[in-house]
Amino acid sequence: MLTVSRTVRIEWGDCDPAGIVYFPRYFEYFDISTVGMFEALGYRKPALLAAFDIAGFPVVDVRSTFRIPSKFGDDVTILSTIPEFSRSSFQVHHRLMKGDELAVEGFEKRVWVGHDPARSGGIKAKPLPLELFGRFRGEDSEGSPRSPGG
Amino acid sequence: MLTVSRTVRIEWGDCDPAGIVYFPRYFEYFDISTVGMFEALGYRKPALLAAFDIAGFPVVDVRSTFRIPSKFGDDVTILSTIPEFSRSSFQVHHRLMKGDELAVEGFEKRVWVGHDPARSGGIKAKPLPLELFGRFRGEDSEGSPRSPGG
Amino acid sequence: MLTVSRTVRIEWGDCDPAGIVYFPRYFEYFDISTVGMFEALGYRKPALLAAFDIAGFPVVDVRSTFRIPSKFGDDVTILSTIPEFSRSSFQVHHRLMKGDELAVEGFEKRVWVGHDPARSGGIKAKPLPLELFGRFRGEDSEGSPRSPGG
Amino acid sequence: MLTVSRTVRIEWGDCDPAGIVYFPRYFEYFDISTVGMFEALGYRKPALLAAFDIAGFPVVDVRSTFRIPSKFGDDVTILSTIPEFSRSSFQVHHRLMKGDELAVEGFEKRVWVGHDPARSGGIKAKPLPLELFGRFRGEDSEGSPRSPGG
Repeated sequence: MLTVSRTVRIEWGDCDPAGIVYFPRYFEYFDISTVGMFEALGYRKPALLAAFDIAGFPVVDVRSTFRIPSKFGDDVTILSTIPEFSRSSFQVHHRLMKGDELAVEGFEKRVWVGHDPARSGGIKAKPLPLELFGRFRGEDSEGSPRSPGG
Repeated sequence: MLTVSRTVRIEWGDCDPAGIVYFPRYFEYFDISTVGMFEALGYRKPALLAAFDIAGFPVVDVRSTFRIPSKFGDDVTILSTIPEFSRSSFQVHHRLMKGDELAVEGFEKRVWVGHDPARSGGIKAKPLPLELFGRFRGEDSEGSPRSPGG
Repeated sequence: MLTVSRTVRIEWGDCDPAGIVYFPRYFEYFDISTVGMFEALGYRKPALLAAFDIAGFPVVDVRSTFRIPSKFGDDVTILSTIPEFSRSSFQVHHRLMKGDELAVEGFEKRVWVGHDPARSGGIKAKPLPLELFGRFRGEDSEGSPRSPGG
Repeated sequence: MLTVSRTVRIEWGDCDPAGIVYFPRYFEYFDISTVGMFEALGYRKPALLAAFDIAGFPVVDVRSTFRIPSKFGDDVTILSTIPEFSRSSFQVHHRLMKGDELAVEGFEKRVWVGHDPARSGGIKAKPLPLELFGRFRGEDSEGSPRSPGG
């Protein structure tokens, strides 16, 4: 299974008056990691939307457990995998590590949606491109999103 | 059980390029609603921290289901209850309604923590003030956080 | 000149480890106040974009002075006016008050832009609807955006 | 003069329904770049606060000009310098570049503040450490904040 890793600096503006990450920010970190999984396969988000003619892959269900807080100035690592997918939805599993310790764990269920102007909301679920998702399952391997500076 | 209700305007800056709420923002909305539950009992957050000598009530576990998207300019209502509490933790249940429809549902498990300079992180779990939490269970009733303009 | 006023509760998640508002949040507060100025004239943002066939009114220049910090739990008032406008741009002036004291002052220059698929960015400046903007200049008066619950 | 450079990926969650960066996010980008200037001299923010016994370096005045919008998936470069400083305040100049074009320009005036429990707000201006700031003026040179993964 492909594991995509990226390092995140905890910024001052992501922390609250208790000096630790304001918890909704973790969902932003995880969302960026999910985008990074597709980039590890060669698709930056704008190109991905265009290549597969989708509006996006919105979250329909999310769960997260917060074990160890992080403070501004900390560098943490997020390890992400896509352990499961079905016809038009997929699961993403994120582990935010402080060194060797699991600090925060997150699960997202996301739906692959196309444009449908006839429907309210303008979107509808669409079959996943199986070849693309098969690459997440592949052999055990490691990747990283292309760094912005790379 | 006390149900606290507040209305939220969905703002332009809370929405993403798909024109709908960027999902981590829902956790901010829910966090504000949790703070509002204590205010409905007469404690604004700074006064609450002081009165009970706590550092806060951080989230340790969160789960959310997104059923219907919302767009900028929408007004939605969040209904919040505290259906359960134990020695030093409590559950909050949030229902974000678009008219009569349940659009987003969220559950938070939070811990009541005091200051403890001797521990890394500087905090430790503390028994809940049962009299205060008993008021969340009370008779079926409705409240609202005092509005900022009120 | 029309002055639009709204009260803002400073939230925990808007504050940083120093316990005060993280300064970029003030620009979000001001942006919401600008949207509220049009609502005081009867146009919620989605209706405004549709009625005048515009893509928005992006900021091209902003300036702000921070005099007095605010903390979570504070209620502050933002007073907004549109002191000037020209062919396709306008100025907004915001004063964030703590009681009688001016805590933060902000100035935005914004451009009225329409859709133009032929241009990169897809937008181009468009003449302001003078009748609408004339109402901001009108007689000295006071308004408020319709409250989300209103 | 020391110029500190960093590359920023524009994320989906930083963009608004017009598909471009929601402008308050630029101030977050610039704030992170200012923190990065001290890191280029060897001080991560928590270590900086401790080494010089300060509470922070809050912004008292900010100005920004937005010339070219950026979209999610864009990689931009922020070049930052400290062109001026006086007894207890300093200026930071940020240029956000899209390739060779200046897309956004920002100026911050910040104050170096120490702890002062006797005052409301708990802080007061403090003389800058001139030796440290002299290094920003130094010879023309280039630096970068240590990358989180570095």
